Amino acid sequence: MSDVIVIGGGPAGISAAIYLKRFKLDVCVLMKDFGALDKTEHIENFYGFSQPITGHELVENGLKQAKRLGVEIKFEEVLGIDAEDLFTVKTVQNEYKSKAVLLATGSSRASFRIPGFVDFVGKGISYCAICDGFLYRKKAIALLGEGEFMAEELDVLRNFSSDLTVFTNGLPLKAKIGETKVISDTIRSLEGGETLQTIVTENGRYDVKALFVAVGTPSATDFALRMGAFIEKNVIVVDENYQTNIPGLFAAGDCIGGLSQIAKAVSDGAQAAIALQKFIRSKTS
Amino acid sequence: MSDVIVIGGGPAGISAAIYLKRFKLDVCVLMKDFGALDKTEHIENFYGFSQPITGHELVENGLKQAKRLGVEIKFEEVLGIDAEDLFTVKTVQNEYKSKAVLLATGSSRASFRIPGFVDFVGKGISYCAICDGFLYRKKAIALLGEGEFMAEELDVLRNFSSDLTVFTNGLPLKAKIGETKVISDTIRSLEGGETLQTIVTENGRYDVKALFVAVGTPSATDFALRMGAFIEKNVIVVDENYQTNIPGLFAAGDCIGGLSQIAKAVSDGAQAAIALQKFIRSKTS
Repeated sequence: MSDVIVIGGGPAGISAAIYLKRFKLDVCVLMKDFGALDKTEHIENFYGFSQPITGHELVENGLKQAKRLGVEIKFEEVLGIDAEDLFTVKTVQNEYKSKAVLLATGSSRASFRIPGFVDFVGKGISYCAICDGFLYRKKAIALLGEGEFMAEELDVLRNFSSDLTVFTNGLPLKAKIGETKVISDTIRSLEGGETLQTIVTENGRYDVKALFVAVGTPSATDFALRMGAFIEKNVIVVDENYQTNIPGLFAAGDCIGGLSQIAKAVSDGAQAAIALQKFIRSKTS
Repeated sequence: MSDVIVIGGGPAGISAAIYLKRFKLDVCVLMKDFGALDKTEHIENFYGFSQPITGHELVENGLKQAKRLGVEIKFEEVLGIDAEDLFTVKTVQNEYKSKAVLLATGSSRASFRIPGFVDFVGKGISYCAICDGFLYRKKAIALLGEGEFMAEELDVLRNFSSDLTVFTNGLPLKAKIGETKVISDTIRSLEGGETLQTIVTENGRYDVKALFVAVGTPSATDFALRMGAFIEKNVIVVDENYQTNIPGLFAAGDCIGGLSQIAKAVSDGAQAAIALQKFIRSKTS
């Protein structure tokens, strides 16, 4: 068991992990990949580097820095988090337990350029099966996604309806989902009145009551939402200690909003670590 | 004339300068020296460096980074700032004008281990001749300090009293101060009742009504105080835009309090620069 599991290996997560390790806490970082910075070619506004650096180099430096101090880093995709007495973090491969969790997975969910999409968010479109599945019991439910995250949501939705259809929106299906209807056409538009009624693809029209979105991998906002944490304008709401309304669940970096800059993420991470340290000490004393 | 003069060449000041330059603003950094970080041998908790780095190396990297982007950096000690339509920043060598000023000189004034010192702050001990000199007109006034900063304060105090004594507290006098009495003994203690009455040195006792402190070089807090900016618990009070109560006077890093960490100073600098950019644009549009 760890004191703190940090989800995300970018500037916020690693900055926090470094501070946590120096506080002599047991910290484990779970990360899927190098994140958004991996595609950044040219960083020259983050203090301390006399020459421009690529995002990949910076993330790699950070990982080396953390490892040198003894931080454990695992490249595993996180699928879900449960909060009871302890936190249980479920990855594709394993389950891990910790006293606290820091969400630092960067900016959250992608928006979709499907005509009609934005109009029906909250009016048939949902980002959380656990939160909203019950509203559509025994109704025709669509699920948008292609990977393990979608499969996890599908398992939740099976509790509410057997009329389930997965839309991969043109992407290849990556998860095993048993005998569920799959439409791999590209979605052209969403139609309806007050609420969502029809998904229009390149080859057909599908009447549904709901569309659950679980594309790619879950974002910090997705995790937070499922755990009952407050979300506002698509960012996780934290207090001055970087703690969400769920005790022990902290968040830092782009996923809590504010300036989307490395400088701010690194500072968030350091400040969250200091608050996390106090939280862990208060639990163990 | 510059858009912004940044005072201080550490992480907060240079981070801000880099952002300001990238906003295509005309920015000039004035710095005395490498500051507190110069003595830091081993930094391993600031994100992005796979190997530990010295404070000197980090500051040097930052200066190279800023220069490469075209930031003007001058090693000049700032003595005072005037705010009228424009800001006038007076250094030992020159005077500079700008539309805005960012104070980023690190943590502020040293405290003194002179017995009695703390008891008389605000009760005879003052950090600002312009603010409090009038209270002691025609009285016996002592001034603690040894350099240009002290000489500046002495010039102000000459308006209020001719009974002036400079105490260098064991340090060699570095400034030219004309015909003023100088005591270079070490101060042993301060004595008095409700207010300060006596300065006790290793060789004598001196009755005074006030002791003005201007040791070494002025801190950001000293500048801010003289300009009428709000100070609380020895840090400069700024709003969410890092602006003080004086329009155009911004502050970032250790001098505004909070976590004394490089990560936080760098983030402060970036965020202050964004606010400064808006301030400058609003002035010029």
